[in-house]
Amino acid sequence: MSVDRIVKDISFKARAAKRHMRSLNEQIKNDALLLIRERLWKRRDVILRENGKDLEVARSQGLSSSILDRLRLDEEILKGICEGIYDVISLPDPVGKVTGMWKRPNGLLVGRMRIPLGVIGFIYESRPNVTVDAAVLCIKSGNSVILKGGSEAINSNMAICDIIREALEERGIPKDAVSLIPTIDRKAVDLLIQMDDCIDLIIPRGGEGLIRYVTENSKIPVLKHFKGVCHIYVDRYADLQMAYSVCLNAKVQRPGVCNAMETLLVHRDVAEKFLPEMIGIFKDKGVEIRGCEKTRKIVSNIGVAEESDWYEEYLNLILSVKVVESMDDAIWHIETYGSNHTDAIITDSYERAHRFIEMVDSSVVLVNASTRFNDGYQLGLGAEIGISTSKIHAFGPMGLEELTTTKFIVFGNGQTRR
Amino acid sequence: MSVDRIVKDISFKARAAKRHMRSLNEQIKNDALLLIRERLWKRRDVILRENGKDLEVARSQGLSSSILDRLRLDEEILKGICEGIYDVISLPDPVGKVTGMWKRPNGLLVGRMRIPLGVIGFIYESRPNVTVDAAVLCIKSGNSVILKGGSEAINSNMAICDIIREALEERGIPKDAVSLIPTIDRKAVDLLIQMDDCIDLIIPRGGEGLIRYVTENSKIPVLKHFKGVCHIYVDRYADLQMAYSVCLNAKVQRPGVCNAMETLLVHRDVAEKFLPEMIGIFKDKGVEIRGCEKTRKIVSNIGVAEESDWYEEYLNLILSVKVVESMDDAIWHIETYGSNHTDAIITDSYERAHRFIEMVDSSVVLVNASTRFNDGYQLGLGAEIGISTSKIHAFGPMGLEELTTTKFIVFGNGQTRR
Repeated sequence: MSVDRIVKDISFKARAAKRHMRSLNEQIKNDALLLIRERLWKRRDVILRENGKDLEVARSQGLSSSILDRLRLDEEILKGICEGIYDVISLPDPVGKVTGMWKRPNGLLVGRMRIPLGVIGFIYESRPNVTVDAAVLCIKSGNSVILKGGSEAINSNMAICDIIREALEERGIPKDAVSLIPTIDRKAVDLLIQMDDCIDLIIPRGGEGLIRYVTENSKIPVLKHFKGVCHIYVDRYADLQMAYSVCLNAKVQRPGVCNAMETLLVHRDVAEKFLPEMIGIFKDKGVEIRGCEKTRKIVSNIGVAEESDWYEEYLNLILSVKVVESMDDAIWHIETYGSNHTDAIITDSYERAHRFIEMVDSSVVLVNASTRFNDGYQLGLGAEIGISTSKIHAFGPMGLEELTTTKFIVFGNGQTRR
Repeated sequence: MSVDRIVKDISFKARAAKRHMRSLNEQIKNDALLLIRERLWKRRDVILRENGKDLEVARSQGLSSSILDRLRLDEEILKGICEGIYDVISLPDPVGKVTGMWKRPNGLLVGRMRIPLGVIGFIYESRPNVTVDAAVLCIKSGNSVILKGGSEAINSNMAICDIIREALEERGIPKDAVSLIPTIDRKAVDLLIQMDDCIDLIIPRGGEGLIRYVTENSKIPVLKHFKGVCHIYVDRYADLQMAYSVCLNAKVQRPGVCNAMETLLVHRDVAEKFLPEMIGIFKDKGVEIRGCEKTRKIVSNIGVAEESDWYEEYLNLILSVKVVESMDDAIWHIETYGSNHTDAIITDSYERAHRFIEMVDSSVVLVNASTRFNDGYQLGLGAEIGISTSKIHAFGPMGLEELTTTKFIVFGNGQTRR
């Protein structure tokens, strides 16, 4: 079958399944998720064997060790993936939720009810655990999902998807609610993002190149996350002990992720006191520092921050440091060079804390806490399907609720419009 | 200046203004809206003179009388537009609203705060009143707006926009928060929908062709409303007296709008009793009926509904009628031919009312009430900026809240991530 036929066939089947999906009770969905968990674990030999094939191909193609790392599954990792399914089972089902109703002067009773989006197209790279995460979150939120994973993981993904589909069918749920594009043909992505009659939302997860490509070419709405250039601003009224510990955590606890700090902004009144010790701590942890002119006047033996550094998402043990004249200067910097992702202030001033919260236009704005808390679990949403840095539909970590929308429901007794 | 330069210049200025806009208190915004209302009325001579120019050009180009009708302003209409501004002033400002906060196990206090989207691009046809509506709603919700109106209304729109900008400036609000693309060059739309660095959301309002064109070519997210193929299903347990009155209202009270009924579905068990009288009533009101085979067996002297009729948004005194075998058959019909806009059931069965509400995937689903209630005012949202028939970001009538999003705000006391 041509890739064109494959993508269309899967899309139409996913759309046909969505009517069944949206009427499922939470109990039925949870039962199916339990069976999926059981079967993935029971048939781990099949999954690991197919993963072995992927690893062999990847090795023979000379792919980097970091790609091999992300691709590799073992019993331990599979166990973690299966545990993750329990977490989703324990989350409340958003579908059917009506948070309030109101009565109109003519007696109509009006409310908003949460409903699934319909069909989600999920485009991602490498990690086979995303296959399970995406399928499980979409099932729980009553959506159909079409998965297009990275070509390196095609055998692992197909094995996982087959097991999920079998379990769904055994529980009386249409197996086409979860499907995987079974080809490594890159054309499949182009075709998928044109199927606006069938797919309601595209979620790309991977490098910035993939996400930009999908965003610019899709006819279907895209929930996107470009990059995280996260800042901490150490205010003149900061508790410096707290600032050392929060800044260290934000930079080094896991430098390769989107919510790690990339730029440190320091108020000039505390710079001379704060920076020598802070930079000393960073250097001890192997962090390369690139400072502005004023920073370099205070601390010697550090690198130079060029204009381009302020835009940079290092994802590594590198930090740019800037001394600012005022809080407004810090806010201006964040607005100009930031990515609307995650930004924090360290201060003991009530007025400044509130002004920072109000003025900074990022998906998560924190006072006296590490940027690393921008995460669905950490903020209390449960499992997340991604982080949105654009403001339409969702802004920040996206959990189950962001895979739904609301419709208006209206109860009358014969009302007509005048 | 080239159209390219004009669009870029306006877009950059709108983006620069958004920082100021998002920090405005409701009181300041309401004061500015009051002044806008006052000035539009005070300078009605200028507006009507410029509108006269547009009408003259339109007449000389031989535009249809319906376009001339939509284009024409007079004192009465302007008065209505100014009254509408009071309505928006009286609506609560969504910006800054935090509906609840929760505490995490580590002591972090987390909440979601409503914030403006940023810059809205508003593309519309003909009616100059939309210029005021869009500007006023965007100001109240703390957004900047770029208006691209229809070429027929260019002089009216420029006069209105100039008055609004002057009033903003007088109240200390950047005038670039509201701007109009001052050209009839069609290239302006193409340029505008590429400015994804500056504009956060595009809202097109007009014919289906314009909306499809914008949706398919925009790099920026689009809130769209294709068409309203609205149904009423008269169930076997319907109160037929109620059904006559609700169906009549849904079809004839204002047939040219998107929430008017286009197809009537009738359960076979009541068809013989219901249809002759109902169709008689419609015929008395000048409605042309196109029936399915079964309908034509019950009532003679009516037209034939072809397959294509079920997809049709007549926007006119035409109605297609179908006898269905069951409620599931009705739901299937709505799912297959409908547009996810507005659908209603007339029934006295508790179980069927709830099943219809659950199964029908439309932005507004009603029991025992006219489809004509799909409207921001009627549902209690206040003024609306449009109706969305796609599920991303908003589904159904869009009020002030749909011109905003939420960010996470986090209050800590030194928390770091483990």
